[in-house]
Amino acid sequence: MDFENFFTAELDKLREAGNYRVFADLERHKGQFPKATRYGEDGESEVTVWCSNDYLGMGQHRKTIDAMKEAIDKCGAGAGGTRNISGTNHYHILLEEELADLHNKEAALMLTSGYVANWAALGTLASRIPACEIFSDSDNHASMIEGIRHSRAPKHLWRHNDPEHLDQMLSQADPDVPKLVAFESVYSMDGDICPMAEILDVCEKHGAMSYLDEVHAVGLYGPRGGGIAEREGLMDRVTVIQGTLGKAYGVMGGYIAASANLVDFVRSFASGFIFSTALPPALAAGARASIRHLKTSDIERLRQRRNVALLRERLDAIGVPHMMNESHIVPVMVGDAKKCKFISDLLLENHGVYVQPINYPTVPKGTERLRITPSPMHTQADIEHLVGALSELWSQCALSRAVA
Amino acid sequence: MDFENFFTAELDKLREAGNYRVFADLERHKGQFPKATRYGEDGESEVTVWCSNDYLGMGQHRKTIDAMKEAIDKCGAGAGGTRNISGTNHYHILLEEELADLHNKEAALMLTSGYVANWAALGTLASRIPACEIFSDSDNHASMIEGIRHSRAPKHLWRHNDPEHLDQMLSQADPDVPKLVAFESVYSMDGDICPMAEILDVCEKHGAMSYLDEVHAVGLYGPRGGGIAEREGLMDRVTVIQGTLGKAYGVMGGYIAASANLVDFVRSFASGFIFSTALPPALAAGARASIRHLKTSDIERLRQRRNVALLRERLDAIGVPHMMNESHIVPVMVGDAKKCKFISDLLLENHGVYVQPINYPTVPKGTERLRITPSPMHTQADIEHLVGALSELWSQCALSRAVA
Ligand SMILES: Cc1ncc(COP(=O)(O)O)c(C=O)c1O
Ligand SMILES: Cc1ncc(COP(=O)(O)O)c(C=O)c1O
Repeated sequence: MDFENFFTAELDKLREAGNYRVFADLERHKGQFPKATRYGEDGESEVTVWCSNDYLGMGQHRKTIDAMKEAIDKCGAGAGGTRNISGTNHYHILLEEELADLHNKEAALMLTSGYVANWAALGTLASRIPACEIFSDSDNHASMIEGIRHSRAPKHLWRHNDPEHLDQMLSQADPDVPKLVAFESVYSMDGDICPMAEILDVCEKHGAMSYLDEVHAVGLYGPRGGGIAEREGLMDRVTVIQGTLGKAYGVMGGYIAASANLVDFVRSFASGFIFSTALPPALAAGARASIRHLKTSDIERLRQRRNVALLRERLDAIGVPHMMNESHIVPVMVGDAKKCKFISDLLLENHGVYVQPINYPTVPKGTERLRITPSPMHTQADIEHLVGALSELWSQCALSRAVA
Repeated sequence: MDFENFFTAELDKLREAGNYRVFADLERHKGQFPKATRYGEDGESEVTVWCSNDYLGMGQHRKTIDAMKEAIDKCGAGAGGTRNISGTNHYHILLEEELADLHNKEAALMLTSGYVANWAALGTLASRIPACEIFSDSDNHASMIEGIRHSRAPKHLWRHNDPEHLDQMLSQADPDVPKLVAFESVYSMDGDICPMAEILDVCEKHGAMSYLDEVHAVGLYGPRGGGIAEREGLMDRVTVIQGTLGKAYGVMGGYIAASANLVDFVRSFASGFIFSTALPPALAAGARASIRHLKTSDIERLRQRRNVALLRERLDAIGVPHMMNESHIVPVMVGDAKKCKFISDLLLENHGVYVQPINYPTVPKGTERLRITPSPMHTQADIEHLVGALSELWSQCALSRAVA
């Protein structure tokens, strides 16, 4: 087989479908978020980033930055090993205590990313609990899907955010078989939020464990940033809460929080945890500082909400269609891969606005979109500029407007 | 099912077998590697770390540290998104160019860890190349095993470091089927090095792609730290070179280097790459500085080799058995999980020496060991102290000595 030809042909298919990804080469500027320098083919330009998942700008917060630099000065760059072989640093322990406290759980375990946390935790639980079956929301994130796939446990897909369907599926399952229900709180591409209490009712009725991905909610919801489960007063009813340190907390890394035994079980058996170098102490220190800050400070969340509301209002005024939801994510729908990329390119070239087009496989074909994430640092002028640009492009590209 | 009981019972089994892992809680000190503060149950104590994979101490090198702090000051803490959605920072691009150059390949792709690099690259190649079959060295690392498992491609295990056996297996396979041969250069637990030229001869004879994990070799071998393939002048014959930024380079992250098309293919299709927040710019900057330094500086490698030779010599003199190999890894064999942990505990409590016991599942049962990794920064006094402590413990625990 000619491997090179095969790779080229597959990449060409992506290009033809408009799904070939070109990464924007950026340099974000601490102190000036959401501004960044973009390195393009024809030189550098200044852009406003409108699609970052550093949702609250904690990646440039003084406390996060100072904690990272202090840890580097104290302990150096990397952890120097896997957690078991010399790689556990005191900052890791402190971070895990902080995370357990955040979710009011007995224990927490830090992993290298939110992706690895989902993959390793679900993969380990579902493969090691004898006869375990998984009940997975049909819109779950790739990292959960891959973890479940990896476990080779029987998997049942229930309709997205539909507790009744979940109930039906659980009722049909063997009552003696251990069950694990996996879902998210805020779904990242549509921004919709799950009916958590109802889902947990169903889990409890059937004696199933609940596994909740709060990746797009931690730091953002709940009085201390504990996520939707905290906001709804449901943390104690969720078996496993999973989160990331790379979005609202502005750093990188992932974790689970649960009972001491469950966490110890994943710690002891998960290949993706055991056989990988630990996070640098500085990341643990930075994330911890960020979590601590958002446990008591509400101003970032309030400003973000204000900007989200303002943007929605302005989009409605000009009739640019966006998906309704009660989260901080504003999906502006285009519905065509090539048009979506085209609009994104024009925003970048002509308006200094960077919003990545979201195409397949991240969203289903036909639902291509611009996923806009207003932060507390966007100004009213930024919002007007974005809305003006979108209005112009909507006319230029003859895209349909929502009925005003 | 009572989940809590299940977890407790499984953890108890580990404890009984002597395989329950207790992580040493350390604080390494920049400027004073290999010294660290250990947080124990009965307070803090100073220890010398003898099992770090920050093999050359680059985690405390001025250039690494300065590059990280500079990037934090410039760009903030995290990347703020996946590589595709606002998370590509200019430091990532520069790092990937540096890595491609290091291995003399057309392109390189950075992933969040060496584990994720193996899992994602092997998983993607083996599942997406139609009818692909994998030929895997029987001692391959967990991350490769899981990637191969994930791909669900047919897998053939060849005897560790045995090119003849590989040749036999490849000869028996369907000549028309695409083949991928996966192996490592330096095997981390035994420290043995693969017969690379012979393996590559066999791959080429059968038209198979070669996938080489150089995680324990990059930075350490070859005139520019390009690994064993560079040392042997074989880089251009290897299809994919995989490495980590978390060991000799002292930071964190993983990568592959290969042809532009292959790298673009993994970039475009690997779930574990696409759906995960990118490395913080500071890690990319630190790793790049470290790689650049080790491209021209040999002093760290020479000092490390001197210390490895000295330790081996002294162990031979007192008859403490260690596995022979031509790498920088010195496995002192104990052969019993509980004894191994006991010795490690005594080294820590009574001698201020930290060497983690290596037990199942990291090594096969019956081959439990202390895996010692001398660095350039260990002094002759450190070595004498370690050897004295081991000698004392060997007598105390009535462990057999090698014939002098
Ligand atoms: C729902 C969800 N879970 C998990 C992840 C992975 O988290 P991380 O970026 O920390 O790997 C993501 C996105 O990146 C996500 O959207
Ligand atoms: C051979 C080998 N490959 C890959 C890895 C994973 O690399 P990382 O620690 O960067 O995840 C390791 C160890 O950690 C390893 O020993």
